[in-house]
Amino acid sequence: MTIFSKILAGQIPCHKLYEDAHVLAFLDIKPIARGHTLLIPKEPAVTLDALSDDAAAAIGRALPKVCRAVMKATGATSYNVLQNNGAAAHQAVFHVHFHIIPVLEGRQLGIAWDAAASDQALDTVLARQIATLLG
Amino acid sequence: MTIFSKILAGQIPCHKLYEDAHVLAFLDIKPIARGHTLLIPKEPAVTLDALSDDAAAAIGRALPKVCRAVMKATGATSYNVLQNNGAAAHQAVFHVHFHIIPVLEGRQLGIAWDAAASDQALDTVLARQIATLLG
Repeated sequence: MTIFSKILAGQIPCHKLYEDAHVLAFLDIKPIARGHTLLIPKEPAVTLDALSDDAAAAIGRALPKVCRAVMKATGATSYNVLQNNGAAAHQAVFHVHFHIIPVLEGRQLGIAWDAAASDQALDTVLARQIATLLG
Repeated sequence: MTIFSKILAGQIPCHKLYEDAHVLAFLDIKPIARGHTLLIPKEPAVTLDALSDDAAAAIGRALPKVCRAVMKATGATSYNVLQNNGAAAHQAVFHVHFHIIPVLEGRQLGIAWDAAASDQALDTVLARQIATLLG
């Protein structure tokens, strides 16, 4: 049982921001910036790929409205939404969660963007593989 | 008109992975890792907070299935989903887009996590403000 399951069960308190049948939003207790929010599905999926269609649609629908309210209340105008899957990708709580992190008061998510040019031949093959899986 | 509007209009080619009535997924031309994918709404919102409920739900519903296919095709098991809003938050194309970035072959999104302890008194006030906006 993760800390988020305990929050959902009411066993651990949180600063609740929003709740509907499928999702809960609350303030992160170790914020990168003021207003740093977590939006989670009630469904206890570990990673995003394991989330049901209905829970995923509900998370999607909630994201803009929670972002709007966090930005309005904090006064931030820029923000990052980050969702980590797997320990190697910095996931620390094994229940799907979206971070909403304002850029505020000199604080923000640090991002290192080490991009390369794409390999066209490789991407053509890879895109066909992925598209076939989604077809 | 952004580069993504031109891709949606078929004026610029892309390695298409998935398309439905509301969203398009394609390979990023400057990938951080192999399989680095962009998932965008067809609706031309600049930032996530400006996205309509229907487009947001469609993006949410598409995210797990696109993640599943990208991870299956690449063999990655960890990945980050990142969505940037505003130039100060590293947004470079001003049309909402979700990055799906595998951890693969020693390459991955670089994240610097500079978190602080929360201020309980401040968070109590802030949470009430945000919850009221969402109520």
